[in-house]
Amino acid sequence: MTVRYEELVNVFIEKLMKKGVDEKEAAICATLMAQNSLDGVYSHGVNRFARVIDYIDKGYIDPKARPEKIAAIGSFERWDGKLALGPNNAAKAMDRAIEIAREQGIGIVAIRNTNHWMRGGSYGWQAVDNGMIGICWTNTMPNMPAWGAKDNRIGNNPFVLAVPRENGEHVVVDTAMSQFSYGKLEMMALENKELPVYGGYDEEGKLSRDPGSIFKTRRVLPIGFWKGSGLSILLDLIASILSDGNCVSDVGTKKAEYGLSQVLIAIDPKCGKDSYNSALVERIIESVTSSIPSEEGHEVRYPGQNSIRTRRKNLENGIPVVDSIWERILSL
Amino acid sequence: MTVRYEELVNVFIEKLMKKGVDEKEAAICATLMAQNSLDGVYSHGVNRFARVIDYIDKGYIDPKARPEKIAAIGSFERWDGKLALGPNNAAKAMDRAIEIAREQGIGIVAIRNTNHWMRGGSYGWQAVDNGMIGICWTNTMPNMPAWGAKDNRIGNNPFVLAVPRENGEHVVVDTAMSQFSYGKLEMMALENKELPVYGGYDEEGKLSRDPGSIFKTRRVLPIGFWKGSGLSILLDLIASILSDGNCVSDVGTKKAEYGLSQVLIAIDPKCGKDSYNSALVERIIESVTSSIPSEEGHEVRYPGQNSIRTRRKNLENGIPVVDSIWERILSL
Repeated sequence: MTVRYEELVNVFIEKLMKKGVDEKEAAICATLMAQNSLDGVYSHGVNRFARVIDYIDKGYIDPKARPEKIAAIGSFERWDGKLALGPNNAAKAMDRAIEIAREQGIGIVAIRNTNHWMRGGSYGWQAVDNGMIGICWTNTMPNMPAWGAKDNRIGNNPFVLAVPRENGEHVVVDTAMSQFSYGKLEMMALENKELPVYGGYDEEGKLSRDPGSIFKTRRVLPIGFWKGSGLSILLDLIASILSDGNCVSDVGTKKAEYGLSQVLIAIDPKCGKDSYNSALVERIIESVTSSIPSEEGHEVRYPGQNSIRTRRKNLENGIPVVDSIWERILSL
Repeated sequence: MTVRYEELVNVFIEKLMKKGVDEKEAAICATLMAQNSLDGVYSHGVNRFARVIDYIDKGYIDPKARPEKIAAIGSFERWDGKLALGPNNAAKAMDRAIEIAREQGIGIVAIRNTNHWMRGGSYGWQAVDNGMIGICWTNTMPNMPAWGAKDNRIGNNPFVLAVPRENGEHVVVDTAMSQFSYGKLEMMALENKELPVYGGYDEEGKLSRDPGSIFKTRRVLPIGFWKGSGLSILLDLIASILSDGNCVSDVGTKKAEYGLSQVLIAIDPKCGKDSYNSALVERIIESVTSSIPSEEGHEVRYPGQNSIRTRRKNLENGIPVVDSIWERILSL
């Protein structure tokens, strides 16, 4: 079935308010989660909404909490997220980073004790919609082995880079440090499909494209093997030190993935001038998208291009939703 | 043969001064390049020195130039590198970023018209040696196809993240967005070795571990396939916009790789307090290095650990140098 974007937002607001979230905060969270499904990131929109409600019930998310500034110097603020709703905390932190960047050229907010921000790309889009360059990342629970290891000690720590375009069709990359998410592995396994590239190790310790085997061993592969492993470790170090919050292994001692550490950075590309070189952005996009395709008839896309297409399609036709998941949400 | 670190520095200084670099600047460049070989990054130390001299001869590097600030707001400065020596420009830009971060919590310098910085990790080490978190990257010439493309339109754009440890054995990741460098491919091909993982595509358009074939097609693989491709594009966009400098495709129109754009960021982990949570850093390192190794007897390392070991060994035993390369340098 399909659901209109506005209906998604309204249902999410209603369900959040039923759990004690006030209307304004419910609207922020509902809008961000509905936008994720709108842009095609269903895993962090409709498909994850019931879990957010469940985490409120379990006390992992505090529906009444608000983030608080706990330290600051110049262009850098440290916040305590007080276990409030993750998307709300991240959006407020990025808002503040943007505000600082307007004055200081760059602004950074590191936030601890926060919750899953759903789609990291949202806060990249938020920065670029305000004419800023956005850089942000989060740590996660331990869900990946470090390079050369068997057990899961590092996070997939999604990392986001975003650059504004004047036409609003911004360039955004939103990438976990794992080659595939567990959600993707599960879906591909259910569909009996092979992964397009190696995604992890099978039961015999061999590199594998079988999503089912990897799902079982939980030995997922970092992007670039040793390289993504190193990046993941550093992203965790920086997020937890700057926020003085939980690191990945701290999160691993909890009953669920909550109390995370995040970094949100905004940079004003104008550097004190009236404008920035937006022609340069177009030149780079043009250069990439006019590459010779590796297979005839294929196109070479820039990061974010697909989100915009899906957004348009889903606005027009409604957002595809799995019937049972939608019924579950309506019953909450 | 081996050469002592101090001798390397002195020979480099002498050769740079012969080309018109003044003593102070020669010492900065010589020290950075000698340190690269000391830490085991021979490709960007001894092995690249003759090319730096050649680029001075060809006018790509201006031995007398100094970088200039051309725009600024708050914690963000834009510099013109004036085609001065790359390592000197990058070190000065990071120095300034650190200075800003001491006052403002975070400092960023974007520099255009600069030159190859040799090992990006150097400027990460510089930040952490000053108690700062370091984040920096550079763009490069086009040397990698975007995901789904055949021809080289994006750069491998090395990206560096660095976190200080109180014992000085800092955590530094320095990673290009390509899985392997051309230097590595060439070396492995000469040694008739297979790559440990896929490194690119062969002549038939198939993923390959044969360094020789990949070296021929120049279709090297981004880390994480589509993911590293996206990261590379965004790193180029941000570096060139913030510095208002050349993007990767602009560099591709030149006769050689010069006139690059770089970003250097320093963040003070103390956030206005007297200290930062250094125990957290140790906890993360301990958690990673105590992982269960994938193969018995192997160890799981943290990023930067190897550099420190090689540094100690090379300080004690001298730096391994290829005879012919050393003779070439002495003859310059």
